[in-house]
Amino acid sequence: MTARLPVGIVGAGQLARMTCEAASALGLGVAVLAQGPDDAAAAIAPDLVIGSPKVAADLDALAARCEVITFDHEHVDLRLLADLEQRGRVVRPGTRTLDMAVDKGRMRLGLAAAGLPVPAFALLSAAGTPGRATPGTPAALTREVASFAADHGWPVVLKAARGGYDGKGVWPVHDAEEAARVCAAAAASGTPLLVEESVAIDAELAVLVARRPGGQTASWPAVETAQVDGMCREVLVPGRLPQAVVDRAGELAREVAGRCELAGVLAVELFLAGDRLLVNELAARPHNSGHWTIEGSVTSQFENHVRAVLDLPLGDTSPVAAAIASVNVLGADPPSEPARHLAAALAIQGAHVHLYGKVPRPGRKLGHVTVCGDDPADVRARAWAAAAALGTPVPDRLALVGTLR
Amino acid sequence: MTARLPVGIVGAGQLARMTCEAASALGLGVAVLAQGPDDAAAAIAPDLVIGSPKVAADLDALAARCEVITFDHEHVDLRLLADLEQRGRVVRPGTRTLDMAVDKGRMRLGLAAAGLPVPAFALLSAAGTPGRATPGTPAALTREVASFAADHGWPVVLKAARGGYDGKGVWPVHDAEEAARVCAAAAASGTPLLVEESVAIDAELAVLVARRPGGQTASWPAVETAQVDGMCREVLVPGRLPQAVVDRAGELAREVAGRCELAGVLAVELFLAGDRLLVNELAARPHNSGHWTIEGSVTSQFENHVRAVLDLPLGDTSPVAAAIASVNVLGADPPSEPARHLAAALAIQGAHVHLYGKVPRPGRKLGHVTVCGDDPADVRARAWAAAAALGTPVPDRLALVGTLR
Repeated sequence: MTARLPVGIVGAGQLARMTCEAASALGLGVAVLAQGPDDAAAAIAPDLVIGSPKVAADLDALAARCEVITFDHEHVDLRLLADLEQRGRVVRPGTRTLDMAVDKGRMRLGLAAAGLPVPAFALLSAAGTPGRATPGTPAALTREVASFAADHGWPVVLKAARGGYDGKGVWPVHDAEEAARVCAAAAASGTPLLVEESVAIDAELAVLVARRPGGQTASWPAVETAQVDGMCREVLVPGRLPQAVVDRAGELAREVAGRCELAGVLAVELFLAGDRLLVNELAARPHNSGHWTIEGSVTSQFENHVRAVLDLPLGDTSPVAAAIASVNVLGADPPSEPARHLAAALAIQGAHVHLYGKVPRPGRKLGHVTVCGDDPADVRARAWAAAAALGTPVPDRLALVGTLR
Repeated sequence: MTARLPVGIVGAGQLARMTCEAASALGLGVAVLAQGPDDAAAAIAPDLVIGSPKVAADLDALAARCEVITFDHEHVDLRLLADLEQRGRVVRPGTRTLDMAVDKGRMRLGLAAAGLPVPAFALLSAAGTPGRATPGTPAALTREVASFAADHGWPVVLKAARGGYDGKGVWPVHDAEEAARVCAAAAASGTPLLVEESVAIDAELAVLVARRPGGQTASWPAVETAQVDGMCREVLVPGRLPQAVVDRAGELAREVAGRCELAGVLAVELFLAGDRLLVNELAARPHNSGHWTIEGSVTSQFENHVRAVLDLPLGDTSPVAAAIASVNVLGADPPSEPARHLAAALAIQGAHVHLYGKVPRPGRKLGHVTVCGDDPADVRARAWAAAAALGTPVPDRLALVGTLR
């Protein structure tokens, strides 16, 4: 009979793995709900349940082994989690927060209702069902897209309300014909859609916020992120962001955290477009845009997530260096095991290499490298060099070049 | 059938636990040889063998699960390890290094033969057996102690050649009568002894060195340590040490590492006595005096130990702050579980709390707290405050006060 551990994590990917590492330092044990024994966190988690987050019995098995349930992904069934809450189990962040992070339609509605800036949007075929987009016929959906575009102009962006990540579930469409194809596929697969204006993005940024149930809140400074094909490739602290933008983004993110009654860590992804700062996405968990905090901040996002869900005082979120770069290690094509290239990566001075122990596949996130220092160009070059040494394909041209207006 | 992991650790205490945390970040799995499932590292080690380091079959079971064998303590049987080496298994550090770290007599002889500064010493009843002290009769032993004291003056220090740690196995004696009592007990238990001059210590310091098999060497700056009743209570970086002493200590430690053909991390503990800098102890593993490196250095002793034993490039050992203090969390009397007091400790700004998940007992090392900053007095006060909040008894008067000459 294993004693009940303080923390249980739904999911056992790299976020759970790094959370386990942080919890271990604090002397706290973690149970994880993994899909299988090869999941990134399975090897180091003190307790392991193999199962699905969408099966009540598997969630119950996790709940029986821990005091507080938290998450490393949002592919969850909110009804099952609400049922756990009703039976007195502690779920943090709670379903009220997860509701916004799990469903892009509810997120947009919730943020807009709170007066927070979001891109112009509409839920498709959602009339009469506030906050819940339901798929209509392809023709009806396409008419709604065209109507939205008549107000906001082409191109527009279609998004799956649920289940998207790393750029999956996002379709820029330039005219009614392209829209019709996406709508047909969505209707066929029963995917609820929303339509958004196509924002002329000058920069993408992210703010991580930690918040305790009682309200104590701490946020890390906003960072600039570069996505390629929707997947985060690098995170720069502070990147090209003017201090005024960093400050406004932090205020917005903390306001979101309070409004959704966050308990845990929340990632708020934003667009900077001219003078507009728009909330794009929420993730109610540690996030790729915060991996730099492991070495780059006094307290990491993983440690503060553990502290927050256990209602412990939050740690200092100050950066420890003037310039920090974090670059994802992606699987090459054909894939090779990055651990075999550790020597080349570790030869690069100051390269903090993290590998997640995942099976290599082309384009899969297998790890990340963080470098802290004084010179932005230098730390970025070293982080990319180490990621490249580990097999990461390097884009011909990095996304973040030039200066912001 | 579990795949063979890169690293196997003999021992599963807190050093193994923190090594597992560092290895996990690098994507490397660790197997540990634990005494039982409650050992500090047992919960998070990806693979676990329950057994004894002094039983050949248990060592073989560990060896079968890993590529390289290393250590978190030196309570080992060198003949069994030499046998493993002869059968082609990789043991790092190797028996040549361990031989000096395991036996204080051999260590003193080896260092003295290399011209390195050590306290005046003699092995008791060791004539004809270089490097191996063997117990004689109590009367003969006492005569040898008196003869040594005639040359070097009373008091002298008697030490068990093997098996001592945290001040155990060290007996200061002020006259022949006291010496006779220790010699009688040692003869009765078959404990080989050495006798040393009583050094008028101005400061105790330690240097951690990492060295790869091929010779690449990196050392962290010397730190000041404070022992109470032989147990390390706090580590200050750089403490009261003048830069010239830090530099000399670093040179000495790197020379020791080279001479003993180190592969891994070695802790070299030294005495500063007037103008003399003397090597006191060696530990061929990560060490309490290096816990500050987790947050206080670009690369921790645990990560560099893993890198060194796997013959990977060593990481930057620079400190990341001007002043760093690390204070051990010890069990109170009566003991209470420090994890229950986490909230109070984490409320102290910048306190990096590490708990090892060990059963609390009075005086037992249960964790440590590190604080990094600019002001030595401030970081020290915060580290002690957090350790005290976790139940650590605080000495009436800290050992390290005043300034060195």
